[in-house]
Parts: sequence; structure tokens; C-alpha cells
Amino acid sequence: TIYVVTPTYARPVQKAELVRLSQTLLHVRALHWVVVEDAAAPTALVGGLLAGSGVPFTHLNVETPPERRRRPGDPPWLRPRGVEQRNRALQWLRETRAPGESGVVYFADDDNTYSLRLFEEMRSTRRVAVWPVGLVGGLRFERPLVAGGRVVGFHTAWKPERPFPLDMAGFAVGLPLLLARPAARFDPQAERGYLESSLLGGLVSPAELEPKADNCTQVLVWHTRTEKPKLRQEEQLQREGRGSDPHIEV
Amino acid sequence: TIYVVTPTYARPVQKAELVRLSQTLLHVRALHWVVVEDAAAPTALVGGLLAGSGVPFTHLNVETPPERRRRPGDPPWLRPRGVEQRNRALQWLRETRAPGESGVVYFADDDNTYSLRLFEEMRSTRRVAVWPVGLVGGLRFERPLVAGGRVVGFHTAWKPERPFPLDMAGFAVGLPLLLARPAARFDPQAERGYLESSLLGGLVSPAELEPKADNCTQVLVWHTRTEKPKLRQEEQLQREGRGSDPHIEV
Ligand SMILES: O=c1ccn([C@@H]2O[C@H](COP(=O)(O)OP(=O)(O)O)[C@@H](O)[C@H]2O)c(=O)[nH]1
Ligand SMILES: O=c1ccn([C@@H]2O[C@H](COP(=O)(O)OP(=O)(O)O)[C@@H](O)[C@H]2O)c(=O)[nH]1
Ligand SMILES: [Mn+2]
Ligand SMILES: [Mn+2]
Repeated sequence: TIYVVTPTYARPVQKAELVRLSQTLLHVRALHWVVVEDAAAPTALVGGLLAGSGVPFTHLNVETPPERRRRPGDPPWLRPRGVEQRNRALQWLRETRAPGESGVVYFADDDNTYSLRLFEEMRSTRRVAVWPVGLVGGLRFERPLVAGGRVVGFHTAWKPERPFPLDMAGFAVGLPLLLARPAARFDPQAERGYLESSLLGGLVSPAELEPKADNCTQVLVWHTRTEKPKLRQEEQLQREGRGSDPHIEV
Repeated sequence: TIYVVTPTYARPVQKAELVRLSQTLLHVRALHWVVVEDAAAPTALVGGLLAGSGVPFTHLNVETPPERRRRPGDPPWLRPRGVEQRNRALQWLRETRAPGESGVVYFADDDNTYSLRLFEEMRSTRRVAVWPVGLVGGLRFERPLVAGGRVVGFHTAWKPERPFPLDMAGFAVGLPLLLARPAARFDPQAERGYLESSLLGGLVSPAELEPKADNCTQVLVWHTRTEKPKLRQEEQLQREGRGSDPHIEV
């Protein structure tokens, strides 16, 4: 089973993002979607969407504590996003999966784009598998560099001194390894860019990474981001008491 | 058959957009994807993606003439986008489909988000079917207003005086009607916001529109837009001769 862990939070495009991600995942066999809302309680919007998606799922929630949350006006990179949510999913896996149970865990943000081939590539993950990610770090792609079937470096332009200069979308972890290392988790205090390293450092050394996607020469996942829609007319109409019907879910 | 007409143009996120749209369409039976590149010749990127998508398709191209193209720095709304491409698809339908052949034509931009239920709703289109579109026109959604099963107005905040204040994503047209009205097409000179009206005005009157999606009370399509990725590090590395491998497709 591939456990796909998706943190998600309320905003105008949330449903659209989850709809298209659910359509991707619905093509993949032996997959379980662990959706963790950044919210004090699970919402009907996400719950309804999951129930109707056709994808096997678990619906969790945990709110990012206020002191770690972005304040309006803060640049998006100031604080890592989705951290407590991914750790909540790790906790769920450790609480519910039997020790030694086979499986692969992948952290899939709700706004990225995933090819179907990516899931077949990650299925054979033993400890930690890696591959390129498109449109990330200011580059066309970042990728591990491979020689003789092993990772020997990284093509990245941003903080190349990081132990694992990998985006969240660029690796998967074997479930048995995660269960065997119960302390491994994402560090909410990690310095910018070091979030992935904070988990992976507790699991493997860089030389042990397993390259996928034809020795990391194929881009099978893209770090897309969706524009925040401008809702100026909505605000105007709402001031006039003529806003879009709030009973219609978007 | 549902003919899904998608104009598309080269940019860093193009492949990602087409990948996720192809995954949506792959779930829909009896569908034919007409992809029209805004390019002087069909590209290998789009051709390869279509060939591997599993979706029945036709691959066309027509370049937007230079005098109608957006210039760098022009605001995106200055000129309508994808117009010659959609007209090229209309031409293809009229040249290749037998008069009276059944079918439905839907204009699906490459960056929007489509629920699977949308396609089932549009399948019963006779002349022109309509439904709400989320996150468009500065509103949570725009939608036709329905009374007694007929469209009696529109919830929209922008140029409500338009004959058909509908987004491109908000309607489908029966193929027999399109074939019976060979002059109906999108007007590349249409004033901003009047592109949809330029086609629909040649096909139906507003009172004839067929409301779908529970009398236009369900949002089944979202006018999402994808951020243009910043590739500043890529430009820097390229100046140093160390850019991302250009042989790797993104
Ligand atoms: O306050 C937040 C912001 C983001 N996220 C989720 O965390 C992941 C990463 O966030 P985002 O895509 O905004 O980050 P970026 O694209 O900048 O890497 C996504 O699945 C979001 O839905 C979250 O749970 N809470
Ligand atoms: O120069 C262009 C710009 C856009 N498009 C296509 O036309 C459609 C509408 O463009 P866009 O999504 O940028 O418009 P908006 O989101 O602003 O409505 C999309 O399928 C694009 O791929 C195109 O063929 N040529
Ligand atoms: Mn993201
Ligand atoms: Mn668009």
C-alpha cells in the first residue's frame, strides 16, 4: 500500500485542489490517502469530498498552533507549512499499522502535480527512494545526481549544503523503516529548507538513498502552485448584501 | 461523445497542466480530447504526453497571429487567449464529423479544475447547456439563475449587460447545432468579456439555455489559475553554464 499524506487548509481553492488530486489518486491501485486538515475540527467540505472521491482514505485534523502560524502579510516561506499535519499522519501510521507491515509513505501537498508513473516508481521503495522534482527551488527541476546506481550529489541551487537538499515531493519512505524509528519526525522548528532533512536525517544517510525514475533523469512530479483568486467583486457584493449564495459550496 | 477542446501554449507549467487534465479526462468514458497548440507546429512535448495519456485525442495547432498576441508586460486580460485555437477545433469538427452526428462540445482550458460529475451533467446537452463556475469574475462563483427549469438571469458582478455573461468553462454546445450553424465561431476581435457571447449569440437565445447541475446550484468546475514559477536560480546557473540539463523534459 502507498500511504499518501496530504496536509490541507481552508482557502478558496481548497476544494478544487483536492478534487484534482483525488482524480489523480483514483487511478492508483493499493493506495490509501491520509488527509490531515490544518483545522481545529474536521470540516464537512473535506469530509464530503473524501467520501465521494472513490479513494480509500483516512481523515485527520490538527491545527497549527497559533505561535507557529503565518501571520497575514508574512512571506509564505517564513514558516514551514503542513508540519504538524504530516507528523499527525506519522503518529496515525505508528498507532494503527502493525510492526513490519509493508508499505510506502509519500508526502503529497495538495497543490502539486503528480504523474501516474510516479506512484509505480515509488512502490519499490525499501528505505528512502528519491527522484527529480520539477519547477522548484528557482530551477526547471532539482534532482539527485546518480553514478553507478547510487546518489552521489544533488542538482540544486538553493542551500546546497543541506544534508538532504530535497523537496517534500522528491522522496518516499518505506513504512517498516518509519515504524522501526518511532522518534523520526518533521521538526517544526527546523530552519528554512531543513524540514525534509529533519525527518530524513533520522532515517538514512544520503549514500543510502534509492534513485528512481531512470536514475533520476525523469521529471514525474511538479511543484505547481495555484494563484490565490481575487474576490474583490465578492467583497463588494457582500457589502451590498448580494454576495454569492453562502449555501453553495465552492 | 464529449469533444473536449483545449487550447494550450508553451510555458514552464504546460506539461504539468496537461498531465493533471489528462488524468481527469481519463476517468470519463466516450470522450475525445481535441488539443490545439498555440504554436507554428505541433510540439514533441504535447504529442508525447497525448500519446501516453490513454485518452483518445486529436492533436492540432495554430499560432495566434503576432498582431493579436499579448506583448510582454501587457495585462493578461488585454487580449482574449486561445481564440484561434478554439476556432481551429470548430473547423476540425465541421470537416470531420458527419452532419447530424451526435455529440457535445466543451471548451476546457488547460488550467481549470473539472469534477467528474461535470462531464455526466453535460452529456445530455441538446443545444446549449449551462452551469455555475467557481472562482471567476471576482466572485466565489458565477451562475445562471433558474426559475421553473429555465434560465431567467445570471449571478455575475462583471459586465452583467453582456448577452451571455458566462465563462468559457460554464457551457457546452450540442455538436449537431454547431454543425448546423457553420458560421458560428469565436470572434477574435470581440470586446473583453464578449468572447463567449460571440459564439453563443450565433447559436441560441438566452432563454433557450439548458440549466444543469441541479438547476445551477452546484459548483462542478473551478476557474483555477497556476502561478508562473520563478526561475531566477535557473537563469543564474545558465549564465554560469550550469543550468538544469536541457535534455530533461519538464
Ligand atoms: O497554513 C497552512 C499552509 C499550508 N498547508 C498545507 O501544507 C502543504 C504545503 O503548503 P504550500 O503548498 O502552501 O507550500 P509551498 O507550495 O510554498 O511549498 C500544502 O498541502 C498545504 O495545503 C497547511 O496545512 N497549513
Ligand atoms: O497565448 C496564449 C495564452 C493562453 N492560451 C490558452 O488559452 C486558454 C485560456 O488562457 P488562460 O488560462 O491563460 O486564461 P485565463 O485563466 O486568464 O482565463 C488556456 O487553455 C491557455 O493554455 C493560448 O493558447 N495561448
Ligand atoms: Mn505547494
Ligand atoms: Mn485559465
